[in-house]
Formats: sequence, structure tokens, C-alpha cells
Amino acid sequence: MKSDLDALMKDHKLDAILVLGNAEHNPPMYYLTGGGHISDAVLIKKRDEQPLLFYSDMEREEAARTGLKTKAFSQFPLKELLQEAEGDQSLADALCLKRIFSDLGVKGRVGVYGKVEFSSSLAMLDHFRRLAPEMEFVGEPLVGSIFLYAMETKNDEEVGRIRKMGKITTEVVGLVADYLTSREVNRDEVLLQEDGSALTIGDVKRRINLWLAERGVVAAEEIIFAIGRDAGIPHSTGNPNDLVRLGQTIIFDIFPAEPGGGYYYDFTRTWCLGYAPEEAQKLYDQVREIFNLVEAEFDLNAPFKEYQKMVCEYFESRGHKSQLSTNAPLDGYVHSLGHGVGINIHERPFSRLNSGDDQRLKPGVVVTSEPGLYYPDKGMGVRIEDTYWMRPDGTMERLANYPYDFVLRMKKWNSA
Amino acid sequence: MKSDLDALMKDHKLDAILVLGNAEHNPPMYYLTGGGHISDAVLIKKRDEQPLLFYSDMEREEAARTGLKTKAFSQFPLKELLQEAEGDQSLADALCLKRIFSDLGVKGRVGVYGKVEFSSSLAMLDHFRRLAPEMEFVGEPLVGSIFLYAMETKNDEEVGRIRKMGKITTEVVGLVADYLTSREVNRDEVLLQEDGSALTIGDVKRRINLWLAERGVVAAEEIIFAIGRDAGIPHSTGNPNDLVRLGQTIIFDIFPAEPGGGYYYDFTRTWCLGYAPEEAQKLYDQVREIFNLVEAEFDLNAPFKEYQKMVCEYFESRGHKSQLSTNAPLDGYVHSLGHGVGINIHERPFSRLNSGDDQRLKPGVVVTSEPGLYYPDKGMGVRIEDTYWMRPDGTMERLANYPYDFVLRMKKWNSA
Repeated sequence: MKSDLDALMKDHKLDAILVLGNAEHNPPMYYLTGGGHISDAVLIKKRDEQPLLFYSDMEREEAARTGLKTKAFSQFPLKELLQEAEGDQSLADALCLKRIFSDLGVKGRVGVYGKVEFSSSLAMLDHFRRLAPEMEFVGEPLVGSIFLYAMETKNDEEVGRIRKMGKITTEVVGLVADYLTSREVNRDEVLLQEDGSALTIGDVKRRINLWLAERGVVAAEEIIFAIGRDAGIPHSTGNPNDLVRLGQTIIFDIFPAEPGGGYYYDFTRTWCLGYAPEEAQKLYDQVREIFNLVEAEFDLNAPFKEYQKMVCEYFESRGHKSQLSTNAPLDGYVHSLGHGVGINIHERPFSRLNSGDDQRLKPGVVVTSEPGLYYPDKGMGVRIEDTYWMRPDGTMERLANYPYDFVLRMKKWNSA
Repeated sequence: MKSDLDALMKDHKLDAILVLGNAEHNPPMYYLTGGGHISDAVLIKKRDEQPLLFYSDMEREEAARTGLKTKAFSQFPLKELLQEAEGDQSLADALCLKRIFSDLGVKGRVGVYGKVEFSSSLAMLDHFRRLAPEMEFVGEPLVGSIFLYAMETKNDEEVGRIRKMGKITTEVVGLVADYLTSREVNRDEVLLQEDGSALTIGDVKRRINLWLAERGVVAAEEIIFAIGRDAGIPHSTGNPNDLVRLGQTIIFDIFPAEPGGGYYYDFTRTWCLGYAPEEAQKLYDQVREIFNLVEAEFDLNAPFKEYQKMVCEYFESRGHKSQLSTNAPLDGYVHSLGHGVGINIHERPFSRLNSGDDQRLKPGVVVTSEPGLYYPDKGMGVRIEDTYWMRPDGTMERLANYPYDFVLRMKKWNSA
């Protein structure tokens, strides 16, 4: 939680943190400011002190809305600094930051964060390092960074926001299922739009984005709605020109977020419209079985990777490859079980077989469980995913409920 | 243009470039890959050679769609490298990159780019610098980076995409105008929704997002729809709970982009619904006059900042403050005239008074012109903005057309 930041800074031997970039679409800055249209801001927090946010005048109202202590960049002699830097903006920024650090009495070891254009920030930092050789500026591996540690556990307000995203997500998934199953089907088993033309993946995605927008939500990244062979490749988003057909596995992985880079939900269902080939049904039954077993065994404070091991063992016992015995398998169970979800779509705890023992299902984490099986050469793939909260009282809560039907009955089609 | 990259690398004394991060929402990586769901990729390009894209297996199809030469990270002994790094992922990544660089024979001076979480990339790079002390890794100030130079001029295909965004933008602006002017109005001059409740800024924004989504487009950042005092602060996005009223300036600044972080359009109109106070009309007339003058005088190869100077002089002659004579004015003309638009909403050329002489209206640039006047204490602000392309034939093209009416007549309301 955010209140852990000072203790984490102490653990990580950081005297201060420097966060760079916009307030939107920038997890560390969003976490500390709550977002808003604040561009190229700078946030400085000394350990055990409140953060201070530096902003441009045009964004003074947006900065004020954060509720943080703020200061305008225009308080500094920016023109003179740019002259001193002979027009090098990165050097001018470093000179300005050196003044700010000096005014605030920041010393020692400083962690630098923020989702930013790396090149210009590196140019600035390299200047800053030369200007302040007595200080130490450090990065941290993502999974081990103070932000991913702090973000790992969520409070009620954060979980409320994730739960709300889950409600919207499952509403939209329901609309998609209803739309698909209401279609007419031609003799090639291709679904038809209202005007009689063939329904494509691109058409379906446009509707999904529309239904999300109606609910004030944005799919920041491309939704995965992949059919047939594409469903066999976990992160294939689906070819927009592919036709939607009966009897093929469709992986629908949808992870919308609050606008501006806020909290995500993460959800997957796999469908076969009308009917399922026997082999696809078999894959589905296995994925469903282990999905249920994992959910039943989710246990407070257990290391997350134990469940990955359990899923690998289950699938291998059914004859599939997994990361347990195969290096980088391209079919079978090819990924890990789940991950934390918050302002980042992927965050702590992770469930990789080599994840640290400290990545546990401790109270406050929000995690996905998403076992899957992939056979691109057979033109099929299956994944089921829900998102869960380990409540402070030790119980587990599935944050949104949606049926697990695999074969969706077509309302206007009967198999011959 | 992209074809300028090798010459730019030579000018900037770069033997190679290293681009980090996702293909989506990451301008340098998007520029070279065309986007797609490719996470945590690495792209390396030696000068005068084709780029090589490294990807994770799950994203092999998305990587293949880029048309670039590609290689899977799984070709490297990732587990062993992580062991060698004692579990430090940033060090393991640096060890892997060192192998890749060695395999490719990359030597010398390398520019590092990409919109990424700064902290983990810095941790990786600091390790890489220790591991390869004979090499030099550098950042560049944003405006002077090879990418912003290359992106500065657009080819027909890029302009076609921007023009398409412009068409969608102006269609949606027309729908908004039509919706607003069709409202009933209560005795406090507040617009009413269909159900008789007061119309808020938040309601309007939801509709805008919906109309954009219907057209397959995303407002990645918050749209500016700001009324009254908020319109007087250029980057205030507007308070969602504010009511939409007659007779107040509304600044509507909308800058949608292709999904996944592609090309933007940038557009602003200022409206008064029903009627305009005399003072607001006077501000509008001045902004409109200088807007027209700038458009008429846009001249191939002129330094962009000359127009900023022209606008400052015009407004100062009418008694307003500007950056020409006032440091960081908070009212009057408080910003600069425009900027390049492309995969970045703000890119070269810039029009700041201290921008370099090389930031010119050369053939191929796409720029905005957006003069404005801001008086937050009087509860008003005005800005007009269009986006233009300097065509290779030396003529200028406004990339989307929309009327410049200031007072919008309410269809169901007559002033007493």
C-alpha cells in the first residue's frame, strides 16, 4: 500500500525518490498523484516526508486537484538555465533539478522512476550525475522496485475500483455473447451481420470498444479476440479480417482500465459457437478442471509459484508440455498461471516458476488465475481467467462473476 | 522521414540505436514496428543496416506482422543468465543484451530510446555500462533526438492517416455541436438532457468518447471540454460536474489517435451557446483575426517561431500579455502558437520563441496553429486550432475543415 513507501525506501536504502513524466499512463506518477492532465511533471519525495509536485503553469488547476504540495516550474529561471546550457534542454532540466534538490536539501541515494521517453531522461540524468557527483541516482529491477512492492497490496478503495472495472468487463462480455449467439449463420458456418455481410473479428472488436466507451472505459491496449489458429498463440490479438465461424475456439481476453491509466481488470473466456470439436472440448475440460482446482486451493500466504507448479504438473500428467520440463514450449501450457493486477496490467505478485518466495497470496493482493492450452497447428487454444482479491480477513473474493460455458448455443442455428 | 534515420545516426555520431519497450504507446518503437501487441521488445539497428526485433514467443505472430527481421528471446539461455545474475532481472537483461550486441558485432556509440519504465531500464543500462566499458550509451534531448528529426517530415501514407483522424475528429465535433444546440434550456440557462436533468461536462465527454469509439478511435488522454473559468486555463480538462450553460466560453480541444498509439489529429474550437458576452466576442474576434493572418502567411521554409513572434506582437498591440514581454504570463496569450503532430501529439517543429532556426515549415511537416486568449478571473478563454500539412509541392493543406462559428444558435431557445 502507498503507506508502505517510506518503509520500502528505508529497506531499499533510498533517501529520496524522483518521479518523472505525465500523470496519465505512468504508473508511479499516477499512483502518487491520482492522474490528471499534467504533462512532464516532476515529483520529489524525501523519505518520511510528503511529496512535492512540480508542474507547468498551464496545468496549475490539474496539479492543484491532486491535493499534493505543488510548485510551478515558472518559479525557476528557466530561460537563464537554458542559456547557461547553451540550448541543451536536457542540461537545462538537470540544472533546474539541481536547484530544486538543493532547495529541498535532498542528499544521498535517489531512486528515479516514471514511464517516460528513456532517451531524454537519460540525457538529463547523465548531466545531473556529472553536476552532483556526491549523489547517487539508481534504477531498480521492475519486479523489485519500491513501487511494485507498494502497489502489490490494495486497500478497499483500490479494490472497489478494480471491482467496478470487473463489473463493466463482464457486462460487456455478456453483450458480446448475446450479439454473437443472435447472428444468422451462412452455409459455410460464418456468422452474418444485420446487413447479411460476413462478421469479422474487426467488426466484433469495434462493438466491444463501443460498449466499453458507453460505460466510460477504455481498452488502452488491443483486446484479444482470436479465433482458430490465432487462439493457439496466447498473445495474438486476432486478425481483424478473419471471419467469425462456428465450431472454432475463440479466446476473448479483455483487460480494460479506467481512463487516463488507472486500475485494470483482467478477464478471459474461451468460446465455441454452435458446437465444439471433440479435441477442443477435451482441452477445455482440462483447463476448466485445473482452473477450478486452483481456485479451490488458493490459500492465504502461499507462494504464488506453487500454483504454477501445480498447473504444470496437472497438464504434464495429461500429456501436454509445460515450462516445468520444457524450455520455452510453443504448444501445450506455454505461460505462467497469473499475475497481480492494479495500475499495471502485470504487477506483483508473479507466478513464474523462478519467482521469489516472497511473491505470495498475502492479504491485499489482487491476482489473476489464467491456465490455458495452446495448439496453433491444430487451430485451437483455450484459456480461462478470473481476477481475485485476497481479502484482509483471509478469504478470497472473485471480483466479478461470469458463466464458464464453452459451447454457446446459436439462437437461430441448429446443427444438421 | 524514416529513410532519414541512417543519415541522422551519422550526424549524431551513433553507430547503433537500441529501442526498448512495447510496440504500442511507445513512439520510437511504434515508428519502426508499426505497433501491435508486442511487449518488452528490443529493437537494435546498426547504422546503414536493417533493424532486428527481439520478441517473446507468445508474441511471435505479432512480431512477424511487423515485416522486420525478428529473433526470439527464447534463443538465449535466459534461465542460466538469471542464475548468473543471482536473480537480478536487470542484470540478467544486461547480460542477454551483451550477448546480442556481441553476436551482431555492435560497437561504439549507441543511442537508447523508448517510452519505458525508467527505473528498470536505467538499472539494466547501468549494468550494461559496467559490462561493456568500451561502449558508450547515450540519451538525447527529446527535441534534438534522431527520432523527432526523422518523424518531423511525413510521407503521403502518414499524412493520409492523420487526415483520416482529422475527418473523424471533425465529424465528432459536428455531432457534439448538433447535440448541444438541440437541448432544451432551463430558466438558469443550463442545458438539459433528454430526461430533463442538467447536462454536465462529464455527460458531454462520455458522448464524445462514444462517438469516437463508434469510429474506431480512442482519446488516449483526457479531452479538453472546459467551460467558463476552466476555459481560461489552457490545459484544464474541465470539471466533469460542471453544468453546460449558455453564454459562457467553451473550449473544446480534441486530439484523438489511432488505437495502440498511432497518429494523432489536433483540433480546437471555442463556442458560446445561445449568445456571447461582449467581452468574450471581442476576444474571439481577435483570436480569429490572428488565426486567419497566420494561416494566410504560412510560408514554406519559414522558421515556425516567426509566427509565434507575429502572434505575440498582434496580441500585445491589443493590450494582452504574451511571452514576448512577460515571463510566464498567467493571462492573455500564455502559450506558443503550435507544434508538429504525428505519432507524438507534440513533436518537431515547435514554435517557441527560443526554438532553433532549424524548426521550419519545411515540406512534409504537419503542424498546428492554435492562438488563444485566456482570462480565468473573468471566467473566459478562447482558442482556435487547425492542423496543416506543408505539401512537398510547397502549398499548404488544412487537413480537416470545420466552421469557425463562435456563437452556436440553440434550436429550442430564444433570448428574451
